[in-house]
Amino acid sequence: MKLGPLNHVGVATPSIPESIAFYRDVMGATEIHEPFDMPAQGVKVCFVDTPAQDGGQGTQIELIEPLGEDSPIHGFLKANPKGGQHHMCYEVPDIHVAKAEFEAMGKKVLGEPRIGAHGTLIFFVHPKDMGGVLTEIMETPKDG
Amino acid sequence: MKLGPLNHVGVATPSIPESIAFYRDVMGATEIHEPFDMPAQGVKVCFVDTPAQDGGQGTQIELIEPLGEDSPIHGFLKANPKGGQHHMCYEVPDIHVAKAEFEAMGKKVLGEPRIGAHGTLIFFVHPKDMGGVLTEIMETPKDG
Repeated sequence: MKLGPLNHVGVATPSIPESIAFYRDVMGATEIHEPFDMPAQGVKVCFVDTPAQDGGQGTQIELIEPLGEDSPIHGFLKANPKGGQHHMCYEVPDIHVAKAEFEAMGKKVLGEPRIGAHGTLIFFVHPKDMGGVLTEIMETPKDG
Repeated sequence: MKLGPLNHVGVATPSIPESIAFYRDVMGATEIHEPFDMPAQGVKVCFVDTPAQDGGQGTQIELIEPLGEDSPIHGFLKANPKGGQHHMCYEVPDIHVAKAEFEAMGKKVLGEPRIGAHGTLIFFVHPKDMGGVLTEIMETPKDG
């Protein structure tokens, strides 16, 4: 595969409202999207935009807060109560091609492709095979 | 302050050569810079470019490997032997203005500004004040 854009860095937080205040008031973010729930994945999500070098769309921060008792984020926050960097998400042109490529390389793909926070198909690859980084692979939205 | 570009995500690794092979052969990176030592900070460094959405310069991956016995990365790798996400680095136009702003907000700035991996002044802010994310603040290089 060919390395695509780093769509976002997932940052776990115990409180999206508090993190929104942090990115707005401390870091000076101006483009903060509306939070929304992703019940199937057990997370509440909020995207914060960063500018690219040329002023266009840069890598986003994806704030993720636990949603429900079974959220996979509870374990992370137990180990990191203030939150912290959780995963990195790269774009690919075709999710099924990417999945086949990762599997052919012996990488542990976690489950079948499913709809992610940007409305396109995504999957995760286990950090043990990815230099310790939980890695999300996401199909680039067709509208850009 | 106003949120600047996410210059890079720092990723700790026990071996830059192995990580270079990973980003090249598994992730398909084509722009991998020459590694170099930063003895004053106790790290060996290697930048991997990712493309921005519009094809320009995106957020970089900064691979960091311990250099010397006193490297601050040894502790991270003891807790995360395969490596993992270590810090996030945002650009600012003026490092001294940024330091004064963070301090005025009660954030724990770690030491005085010093020359970072891109040749401009940087400082780190303690993760306890930054939503659990060790945050590097870097003055934008004057050549872009």
